Amino acid sequence: MSIRAVVCFMTQQLYDRPMRFYTEYLTFKTAKHREYINMTAQVESALRKSGIQEGMILVSAMHITAGVWVNDAEDGLIADIDEWLEKLAPFRQDYRHHRTGETNGDSHLKSLLVHHEVVVPVTKGKLDFGPWQQVYYAEFDGQRSKRVIIKVMGE
Amino acid sequence: MSIRAVVCFMTQQLYDRPMRFYTEYLTFKTAKHREYINMTAQVESALRKSGIQEGMILVSAMHITAGVWVNDAEDGLIADIDEWLEKLAPFRQDYRHHRTGETNGDSHLKSLLVHHEVVVPVTKGKLDFGPWQQVYYAEFDGQRSKRVIIKVMGE
Amino acid sequence: MSIRAVVCFMTQQLYDRPMRFYTEYLTFKTAKHREYINMTAQVESALRKSGIQEGMILVSAMHITAGVWVNDAEDGLIADIDEWLEKLAPFRQDYRHHRTGETNGDSHLKSLLVHHEVVVPVTKGKLDFGPWQQVYYAEFDGQRSKRVIIKVMGE
Repeated sequence: MSIRAVVCFMTQQLYDRPMRFYTEYLTFKTAKHREYINMTAQVESALRKSGIQEGMILVSAMHITAGVWVNDAEDGLIADIDEWLEKLAPFRQDYRHHRTGETNGDSHLKSLLVHHEVVVPVTKGKLDFGPWQQVYYAEFDGQRSKRVIIKVMGE
Repeated sequence: MSIRAVVCFMTQQLYDRPMRFYTEYLTFKTAKHREYINMTAQVESALRKSGIQEGMILVSAMHITAGVWVNDAEDGLIADIDEWLEKLAPFRQDYRHHRTGETNGDSHLKSLLVHHEVVVPVTKGKLDFGPWQQVYYAEFDGQRSKRVIIKVMGE
Repeated sequence: MSIRAVVCFMTQQLYDRPMRFYTEYLTFKTAKHREYINMTAQVESALRKSGIQEGMILVSAMHITAGVWVNDAEDGLIADIDEWLEKLAPFRQDYRHHRTGETNGDSHLKSLLVHHEVVVPVTKGKLDFGPWQQVYYAEFDGQRSKRVIIKVMGE
């Protein structure tokens, strides 16, 4: 075994051990214009595939008329949130954005309001969540394919 | 010293050097239903214990009726924020969520509005903040124990 | 070549390979009180300089009257967002915060509403964005120098 062989072996260790990245893309095509999907199981699945024990997961919508949040999986609350968002960022005909031919000005505002991403902590190979925390994908302009990136980073 | 001994020594270096994670959990039990707590000192303390010089800190509420933000430590502003949140996401009797027996529908909406987490940059062993930035825990449904995770990641 | 020489060589690899951090500070001084600046090119430039292929970028305002978001680069929409923010978090004379001599209470609320930071995924040396995603700096109290930190982390 030459000195060079040792060096190569160690370099391989560097790739395997200290920091790993695992990226997955999900595609959602909702039946409705606005829809809210609990995607916690998909985030957990990506974490398992990554093999990462310590780190964090970025879950981020890749479109500008969708959001990602962490909150409760309770249907009544989801309906409350939907009504509340429509009140704070209502559909209107006269958004300036509609001069481009789009009709989804409110979808952009709703996305800004709830934010398009979350960072989830990972400890001992699990989502380090409190008892009721769930990751939701919030579609504000659906009925077409939209992507979400899940990037797991850690060791 | 055999070649194998060199390899083991190097592997240990891999654990110590490139990436560290330090996790701390805080518990808040506020006297009031809504309360805003400057937790910058606790975040700084976690950073010191981690020994991390370069990286970032995820500060994330583990409950779905609380928030974390970065803004000013000025009592008048805190009162303005509280009033503003109650206006945009008011307490109401008739949230659908209350059919579950809960009465905290507005607390969930307030949490969504301000977001439940922040990521703080770390440079040269310090929170890399501007002159007025402070980390706040925002309790929207208090008078019981609620947890916040601080996860420091870096080297 | 002694065994010690091998160890030193490997230690250097540890610094170079597994995790890199690159930090850049931008300063914006807008002509107007409220202004929205597409800073995607600056974020891409910081990523190139970092040489990082896999990881993420924290883009975070260092002031408490500014925001950072990811959304569309469409002037009509930007005007819609500005109008909408003024409606949800309006300028008022009577904010309690103004007793300090400040007049920017609404700027703080707008900052909370849109959030002061984003985390951008990096894959294969590029911002891993969907087709329309752009990073914006949102100035809510301008006409003076304000800083934004860009921290690239990865390998």
